[in-house]
Amino acid sequence: MSHRIRLGMVGGGTGAFIGGVHRIAARLDDRFELRAGALASTPERARESGAALGLPADRVYDDFKAMAIREARLKDGIEAVAIVTPNHMHYPAAREFLKRGIHVICDKPLTATLADAKKLARAAEDSDALFILTHNYTAYPMIRHARAMVAGGELGALRLVQVEYAQDWLAEPMEAQGVKQAAWRTDPAQSGAGGSIGDIGTHAFNLAGFVSGLSAEALAADLHSFVPGRKLDDNAHVMLRYAGGARGTLWCSQVAVGCENGLRLRVYGERGGLEWHQEEPNAL
Amino acid sequence: MSHRIRLGMVGGGTGAFIGGVHRIAARLDDRFELRAGALASTPERARESGAALGLPADRVYDDFKAMAIREARLKDGIEAVAIVTPNHMHYPAAREFLKRGIHVICDKPLTATLADAKKLARAAEDSDALFILTHNYTAYPMIRHARAMVAGGELGALRLVQVEYAQDWLAEPMEAQGVKQAAWRTDPAQSGAGGSIGDIGTHAFNLAGFVSGLSAEALAADLHSFVPGRKLDDNAHVMLRYAGGARGTLWCSQVAVGCENGLRLRVYGERGGLEWHQEEPNAL
Amino acid sequence: MSHRIRLGMVGGGTGAFIGGVHRIAARLDDRFELRAGALASTPERARESGAALGLPADRVYDDFKAMAIREARLKDGIEAVAIVTPNHMHYPAAREFLKRGIHVICDKPLTATLADAKKLARAAEDSDALFILTHNYTAYPMIRHARAMVAGGELGALRLVQVEYAQDWLAEPMEAQGVKQAAWRTDPAQSGAGGSIGDIGTHAFNLAGFVSGLSAEALAADLHSFVPGRKLDDNAHVMLRYAGGARGTLWCSQVAVGCENGLRLRVYGERGGLEWHQEEPNAL
Amino acid sequence: MSHRIRLGMVGGGTGAFIGGVHRIAARLDDRFELRAGALASTPERARESGAALGLPADRVYDDFKAMAIREARLKDGIEAVAIVTPNHMHYPAAREFLKRGIHVICDKPLTATLADAKKLARAAEDSDALFILTHNYTAYPMIRHARAMVAGGELGALRLVQVEYAQDWLAEPMEAQGVKQAAWRTDPAQSGAGGSIGDIGTHAFNLAGFVSGLSAEALAADLHSFVPGRKLDDNAHVMLRYAGGARGTLWCSQVAVGCENGLRLRVYGERGGLEWHQEEPNAL
Repeated sequence: MSHRIRLGMVGGGTGAFIGGVHRIAARLDDRFELRAGALASTPERARESGAALGLPADRVYDDFKAMAIREARLKDGIEAVAIVTPNHMHYPAAREFLKRGIHVICDKPLTATLADAKKLARAAEDSDALFILTHNYTAYPMIRHARAMVAGGELGALRLVQVEYAQDWLAEPMEAQGVKQAAWRTDPAQSGAGGSIGDIGTHAFNLAGFVSGLSAEALAADLHSFVPGRKLDDNAHVMLRYAGGARGTLWCSQVAVGCENGLRLRVYGERGGLEWHQEEPNAL
Repeated sequence: MSHRIRLGMVGGGTGAFIGGVHRIAARLDDRFELRAGALASTPERARESGAALGLPADRVYDDFKAMAIREARLKDGIEAVAIVTPNHMHYPAAREFLKRGIHVICDKPLTATLADAKKLARAAEDSDALFILTHNYTAYPMIRHARAMVAGGELGALRLVQVEYAQDWLAEPMEAQGVKQAAWRTDPAQSGAGGSIGDIGTHAFNLAGFVSGLSAEALAADLHSFVPGRKLDDNAHVMLRYAGGARGTLWCSQVAVGCENGLRLRVYGERGGLEWHQEEPNAL
Repeated sequence: MSHRIRLGMVGGGTGAFIGGVHRIAARLDDRFELRAGALASTPERARESGAALGLPADRVYDDFKAMAIREARLKDGIEAVAIVTPNHMHYPAAREFLKRGIHVICDKPLTATLADAKKLARAAEDSDALFILTHNYTAYPMIRHARAMVAGGELGALRLVQVEYAQDWLAEPMEAQGVKQAAWRTDPAQSGAGGSIGDIGTHAFNLAGFVSGLSAEALAADLHSFVPGRKLDDNAHVMLRYAGGARGTLWCSQVAVGCENGLRLRVYGERGGLEWHQEEPNAL
Repeated sequence: MSHRIRLGMVGGGTGAFIGGVHRIAARLDDRFELRAGALASTPERARESGAALGLPADRVYDDFKAMAIREARLKDGIEAVAIVTPNHMHYPAAREFLKRGIHVICDKPLTATLADAKKLARAAEDSDALFILTHNYTAYPMIRHARAMVAGGELGALRLVQVEYAQDWLAEPMEAQGVKQAAWRTDPAQSGAGGSIGDIGTHAFNLAGFVSGLSAEALAADLHSFVPGRKLDDNAHVMLRYAGGARGTLWCSQVAVGCENGLRLRVYGERGGLEWHQEEPNAL
């Protein structure tokens, strides 16, 4: 079994969402094997979650720091760790593994605060291990093709970058109805300053830059919470100006009723344009 | 033939674009008959254009004022006039017919300047004749249905109104290549202060209001000319706030390469959402 | 008004369907003017229909033969006639006009019987006037382009021609509910031997041949009436073999619930394929 | 690791296609673990393939019968086996595992011959183990929903079942160009009497029956090879009559240039219709 990368996981216990997605993704090409985890924030739930995943008891940890320390010493310790916690734990967890040479696969957004982001950037620079942020939508073949078309000049100099990411699962106050995924995402202490803009706007922003190759220079934004009492934005409209003169908008929403996972990108240049939609990903 | 409305036309001579569209529309349901015209800005072209349309010579006029005066006196004079000139002539022409009790069907945008718009509003109020502005996209059955759905509360209180109108025919400097339609639309003296925002943004803005039933209260806009040397915007990004709390964006562009006539509206409320696209108008 | 072709119409009176479509089509490009008609099968309804269309009383006829005789003699008599009657009248009416040198624009299918079709072919050959059958779907720009692509060899030698035309308006026994359009179409005496196959299958068959340039050589067909008591097919499945080796199917139905006017063509050759759908006619 | 089903595989060695798909599918929900294999028809390739998949050497077999015998005796022997060989081996392989109580997951079509199919049916009946045929398309949520709608009477009594499966990867003689997947599929000795009809027509036929709940009673078919020298059909047109009176067509093709995996189903009843397309599987 030596051909598989030994993987650990921080977060992703019973009831979590994105941890399961990471595990499926890790199994798809048979290049990873889950070997250890600090899967939940209480010892009891961590143990239950580890057992449910078939992990041996001695590789299930109560906290990520203990896991980083011990796994780094084991002969068959993990080589990489997936961090799939709420945003505010990204930096503290990543730091412990990076400093011990364990590669980090971290879910987006990078961190909950700008200060944490800067510290994480330094931690990644100081480490021999890789730091990987899962802006997964960039892996679609048509997105790679789009990027190559732009880079190859097929569209000419770019003028417009229109990107949007529309969902509807927060159209009602799910956070007040005991939905765990909604609760932490709308809690500034766990999610950080951004609601929808951090949760999905970050994907849209990343995709726009990935395909266009452009950096944003200036923006005007209107972030808003439509659901009464919600502390973080559930919708954002942003006008952007990119280096080199291109302009565009970014719209992200988690209250656009009828939209499931509507990530859509359109790029227009002097000679050509392209359009891609995540829900029909094989068309460009 | 008494069942047909006797129609005149100002503008729309040989080489014009929208005049021919008005004439086709007028013939479709057989309720109009073109009887007179001041079709061009020079007497010679006016006469040639009238002959090409089969108008009797005595109903072809050199200027619209002479036409308004004489037609108002004729027993079988025109009952309505279509004004299909460049924008700066909308008000002067409309005024002459309204004051003589002849109904006016005027192409959009209303006028080239705000001052003219206010004068036209007064002229319409002072007249017994109707003043009709051809925001034609509101007539699609699915748009009527969308409006009824919103008004009937099927979407709940509205939160988002996303509208866009993307074309590409001005992606290159057509105005410098002798294209008449491009020349006047990019000339502030004829088009007014707005380029794409006046030419097609007005349709998008109107459609958003027509379906949502909402009035815009505040906006932030980024109007820009991508084609070097162009004096009027060929692209506009606008963030809008509507009375009652809804928000949205309006994007119009005439440089979005690959887009032919991409008028698209999306409206989201607390309980439902709808989407419509002009290029597949029978789907909602 | 001399630039317009003087048109007559046989059938198309009050309550008819396709006559109105012909009149709209005739007005669209302003090249026709309706001047005479034998619009209905009873004198009273013929007169009412003529008045409703604004025809002068002396150009409204009780029967098409009288119309053909008199119009052929008038100095400003009709130059062409549109025949928009039930199928069994196509040949008798066309004959009278063709023999007097008046061009005939006839709705499909050609005739109600094969014997009539052969007689009509001879009548058309013997006349200096044109005989035109309105297989109107061949006029779409994308269909013309498809035909040119095939003819130009872009698809290579053709292998497959898949064509279908699905509607649903006869899913219930409309003919028993007083719907005139359904009544004659399901009556062998007026419609001929074919129900859906004659009414819309003919369009599909024609389109397949028009684009592919191929002639059918052999077929196996399953015609069926799903609605109890209906005397003519409301659905047809056909397997076809074309000259040169291509094969394909033709499906037409008037009981495919949810389909409005689903004419769709797919053609595949050794090197390429193409697809077109009437309900999104600008895509190929 | 006891929560995972111990899986073996017959076929699916290096260079094979569907074996890899089975392995991905088996990993997706983490309920299977590959433990043994008879992966290729020569011992050397079998060993190489096993090593590439990380199987221990003592669980890699030269032939499936030896594998069935030994695995049935092992304490941690396989509980199920996936058979992903060319069609002619389905029955011989399945028989060995079924008779030893090991569950069989067999790729379609069932067998290469009708005689084999009947023997396999008896072998499955005589065994306590399960025999599972991977008509995988029936697992799409929208297909399950479609089936429930039909069974629940939402469409009324069914009239029409239109199914098709169009591909293009055999549009050229790939079997003569060393493409292994094409070679055995076009070889009657390995594939059986059917080419495209067995390879993908079987999916279409199964899906039609799965959703409609109907059994075919009669058919007329036109199977054909368009590629010169090919011994098995690469295209099939079939007209079908179902028990209860519904009719329909089945079209499958591997020479429809431009079609990748175009499995499409349409079902129409007296009161409703539905449409599904595999390439946009979340829409119904």
